[in-house]
Amino acid sequence: MSQDQLDARRKEILTGARTCFARHGYEGATVRRLEEEIGLSRGAIFHHFRDKDSLFLAVAEDDAATMVATVAQHGLVQVMRDLLHRAATTTDDGGDVAGWLGSQLEVSRRLRTDPEFAKRWAARSEAVAEATRERLQRQREAGVLRADVPIGILAQFLELAYDGLVLHLATGRPVHDLEAVLNLVEGAVRRS
Amino acid sequence: MSQDQLDARRKEILTGARTCFARHGYEGATVRRLEEEIGLSRGAIFHHFRDKDSLFLAVAEDDAATMVATVAQHGLVQVMRDLLHRAATTTDDGGDVAGWLGSQLEVSRRLRTDPEFAKRWAARSEAVAEATRERLQRQREAGVLRADVPIGILAQFLELAYDGLVLHLATGRPVHDLEAVLNLVEGAVRRS
Repeated sequence: MSQDQLDARRKEILTGARTCFARHGYEGATVRRLEEEIGLSRGAIFHHFRDKDSLFLAVAEDDAATMVATVAQHGLVQVMRDLLHRAATTTDDGGDVAGWLGSQLEVSRRLRTDPEFAKRWAARSEAVAEATRERLQRQREAGVLRADVPIGILAQFLELAYDGLVLHLATGRPVHDLEAVLNLVEGAVRRS
Repeated sequence: MSQDQLDARRKEILTGARTCFARHGYEGATVRRLEEEIGLSRGAIFHHFRDKDSLFLAVAEDDAATMVATVAQHGLVQVMRDLLHRAATTTDDGGDVAGWLGSQLEVSRRLRTDPEFAKRWAARSEAVAEATRERLQRQREAGVLRADVPIGILAQFLELAYDGLVLHLATGRPVHDLEAVLNLVEGAVRRS
């Protein structure tokens, strides 16, 4: 296979795996279900990814890369608006956005009990945090932000709101009013 | 047994169960482990609670009742400060506060797949939301709150921050700076 073919195959695996984790949760996404959703044998799948953990983290890292790019260009509030919009417009049962976020929550216990897993997860979070701080720094230089709170605190405030949105959506709670709530979040970091 | 003895026994079971769920997670808290932690036989435990689900929800309802009382008196921001303080001062590995919150996250998938469980869980969330709105209404009458955003939106903003804090602590992330972040959350709902 050429590098292009390898990249395409990898992407295909990640897309199927994301859907499978969203539908069945992390524990419920058995190797058999992953094979069915991806449409490849376990041999083919695990030629590209060491194991289910690696596959899950690769999906998460893929999402983190997309998120870092969006944060850099439009900010973390826009990432939240996009997430809300996707969750609000999903029509299938429960929604794949909520499902995928839910499967991320399932690993929360692993984060406390498995230091290696926690380390890889932390790297992903730190990339998003870094992009958030850089974006806020540029916003401050443009005079858009409030001047009385350090960048690091503003960034953590936005991350707290993002985490809250993840938990809210992943537990299937109603999305109406959340747009107004996000306006309030955005207003809280801006110059009044 | 007298009513007082029954109440005391019930309380004893809830305390042991909370510790067990915090240590082992929801799935990991087997009946055997619950027996060991509570110090009673399964017969005695399930005389008071129908099954493990009921026991878990009773612990959550117990916590919600405490939370409603604190929200009514001091507000949801104070609940967040208390949670942060307990997480910051816990010395054992990971901390029982984070552990208990983590076991609540584990049930997030159940919320999407088990309507009966989701209904009981929603009742608990609604009690806290109601107490938050009532407290904010009194704060507004006292002239403390910003006047340009409806109570319902301010309440959901605080709940979003609370959810974010739960996810942050349950995934074992660092607590430093979070006090300043909570000041920002509080400032965002107040008259400037």
